[in-house]
Amino acid sequence: MKSYCEMSRDELQELKSQLEAEFEDVKGKGLKLDMSRGKPAADQLDMAMDMMDVLDSKSVLQTEAGMDCRNYGLMDGIPEAKALMAEMVGTKPENVIVYGNSSLNIMFDTVSRAMTHGIMGNTPWCKLDKVKFLCPVPGYDRHFGVTAYFGIEMINVPLLEDGPDMDMVEKLVSEDEAVKGIWCVPKYANPTGVVYSDEVVRRLANLKPAAKDFRIFWDNAYCVHDLYADNQPQLLDIISECEKAGNPDMVFEFGSTSKVSFAGSGISLLASSPANLADAKKHMTVQTIGHDKVNQLRHVRYFKNMDGIKAHMMKYAESLRPKFETVLKILDQELSGLGIGTWTKPLGGYFISFQALEGCAKAIVAKAKEAGLVMTGAGATYPYGKDPRDSNIRIAPSYPTPEELTIACQVFVLSVKLVSIDKLLQEA
Amino acid sequence: MKSYCEMSRDELQELKSQLEAEFEDVKGKGLKLDMSRGKPAADQLDMAMDMMDVLDSKSVLQTEAGMDCRNYGLMDGIPEAKALMAEMVGTKPENVIVYGNSSLNIMFDTVSRAMTHGIMGNTPWCKLDKVKFLCPVPGYDRHFGVTAYFGIEMINVPLLEDGPDMDMVEKLVSEDEAVKGIWCVPKYANPTGVVYSDEVVRRLANLKPAAKDFRIFWDNAYCVHDLYADNQPQLLDIISECEKAGNPDMVFEFGSTSKVSFAGSGISLLASSPANLADAKKHMTVQTIGHDKVNQLRHVRYFKNMDGIKAHMMKYAESLRPKFETVLKILDQELSGLGIGTWTKPLGGYFISFQALEGCAKAIVAKAKEAGLVMTGAGATYPYGKDPRDSNIRIAPSYPTPEELTIACQVFVLSVKLVSIDKLLQEA
Repeated sequence: MKSYCEMSRDELQELKSQLEAEFEDVKGKGLKLDMSRGKPAADQLDMAMDMMDVLDSKSVLQTEAGMDCRNYGLMDGIPEAKALMAEMVGTKPENVIVYGNSSLNIMFDTVSRAMTHGIMGNTPWCKLDKVKFLCPVPGYDRHFGVTAYFGIEMINVPLLEDGPDMDMVEKLVSEDEAVKGIWCVPKYANPTGVVYSDEVVRRLANLKPAAKDFRIFWDNAYCVHDLYADNQPQLLDIISECEKAGNPDMVFEFGSTSKVSFAGSGISLLASSPANLADAKKHMTVQTIGHDKVNQLRHVRYFKNMDGIKAHMMKYAESLRPKFETVLKILDQELSGLGIGTWTKPLGGYFISFQALEGCAKAIVAKAKEAGLVMTGAGATYPYGKDPRDSNIRIAPSYPTPEELTIACQVFVLSVKLVSIDKLLQEA
Repeated sequence: MKSYCEMSRDELQELKSQLEAEFEDVKGKGLKLDMSRGKPAADQLDMAMDMMDVLDSKSVLQTEAGMDCRNYGLMDGIPEAKALMAEMVGTKPENVIVYGNSSLNIMFDTVSRAMTHGIMGNTPWCKLDKVKFLCPVPGYDRHFGVTAYFGIEMINVPLLEDGPDMDMVEKLVSEDEAVKGIWCVPKYANPTGVVYSDEVVRRLANLKPAAKDFRIFWDNAYCVHDLYADNQPQLLDIISECEKAGNPDMVFEFGSTSKVSFAGSGISLLASSPANLADAKKHMTVQTIGHDKVNQLRHVRYFKNMDGIKAHMMKYAESLRPKFETVLKILDQELSGLGIGTWTKPLGGYFISFQALEGCAKAIVAKAKEAGLVMTGAGATYPYGKDPRDSNIRIAPSYPTPEELTIACQVFVLSVKLVSIDKLLQEA
């Protein structure tokens, strides 16, 4: 295909008329499509329905040690759930606290606790003039939402093919005591799908922070979310790497079964050093008498162990993989060689990241919306919702049905073409 | 029986020797008894086991409006759970947000949010020199734990037969802008069992606070926890009373099914004005994508409506009432007329409150522990764990079996007698 950049003004104008006609056709259909959020589709949720049968009125709702899961107590989770969650993220059970249904809530609470009470005896962040977080970009909007909510200054760090730009991270973390954290999605990063390399994980674990209370916020949300059985990148365990590096307390790891069992009714975890967990428990003791242990037991009895989780995730992949392939195929067929966009081809996770011509992302998302397709807001993948190049668009293929997805991609591709032509015409 | 106060020194000494022998006997048995916490007993939890059957793999896990409860979304709870919870506490569904398994967690988060972000646009409490809460005493240790954790100064207010000493509350709230809240357990108060009278509720609703962001923290934990079918005091709805009084935003009401379904796996609520709920939701939007809606659905399908909850609570009462009666009978038989203690005779809730001779509570709890009986720590019912008269002891009869309870009460009564004699001997 001929690159748009090589087309004459007239050629672009002619193409534009033709595409506009197509677009009006699509618009006329009154579509309602949503590729905005990383939500599991109904068929994925159906795959976990047997979980609803593992406990019934005849079940003994006790832990192996005989604790009654129905009653108060066991604030940090039932031992067997700790074991399962530890295996899932690749750490030891003693490094784990099991929480309720939302790992975002744990992250929020961890930042909130640092604000009001400080981390391990350090000054509460609310008493400091300035607190900063490093934000590999593009990244996860809800992470940036938490730090923005607490008035924490966010600094963009480019996310490269193998993780954040470590030269920049090392410099900022070692020189500025106000830098208290970095948001990381180390495996199948949201939205680019990047997996942090061993070297990046080790460089992170070996950081020499100016701030004693600097922490890596390691959101291992997609630890078992492979799309392929035979091409599964491995992520190093950050907790043991931090130990080896003499920085045992430098990381808070988060995870959940939100995209393993039910998105709204899973279980979640905080994994960290014993010292960090003790600090977190001081807070928890005041906050709650414990999370839902019956649901923890339900998960344990259903998945049993890591093999159970892996087998389940391969069923999930059967649903997700064709969707990713549909999107990638249409992007490839329709946009390859046109010079108006690039995109990622992830091996797992929930997103495809699209890089449009500079200054086009907002317009593309708006255009798609005209035809009834909701995308993640352009800019959402950057702190403060500001993509400095107005270029990144997050594509979430999981929620629509395969039929909807094909139409959605066609709308998207049309929108990309039209907006890109306008940009090229303006520049010409 | 002859009052101990009327006994001579010799009589007391003789009695002491006799009671000490009895105590040594009991101690020799190596008992392990717990009357410390308001935990439901296993037989109560068993009564809700059918709840585990209402959802299975064949169920359609959708709200009536067709929302998939398994997926993300509906942050403030499913509509039918709002309706059920609203009915339970006696308010309208639009005044309710349904949360996860812990109302303590909602209270904690509400205070935490006020600390970091302020209430409805007011100055965050962490920016103020002084924040104070009124604490009707004796009261609930975990309430005081939350305010203590955030460095909030707690002021004791006597809890009378019909609620807090309102003359004192009105004066403090109207004169001191630093007073931002009051902890209330308005029905079957923990630990005295008091139910706030209509007059007290109306005086609370008509407060004229110096602080714009003063709030009543209304922990309606025992709203449906009657012990008797025919003697059920009614509590006025504080939310509508506040509306009538022109103070629509002055109350946060909390509640849960922790002592209705399963203590660890219930659902909980915040009820308040639309303006307060909107403020809370701004925070929630950043904190979580939503609470466990499958468990909300499970509760709705099991209890169906208020009649279902009431019928269930009458079964609970069948288990609890004999326990309360056992304790009261033994206290009556063993301590009546001795002049060494008074106690409450509640119509609901989870506790009996015992008032010992001044300066004896800590010693009684310690004495009981010698014989293997764990009571709530003396002082726990007061802010900072400091009962100024060292007199109040909370008795929680729910958790032990009836047999254990009889022995526990005998140990308690012996401990009261022995410590009281020591006090009288010292004074004589």
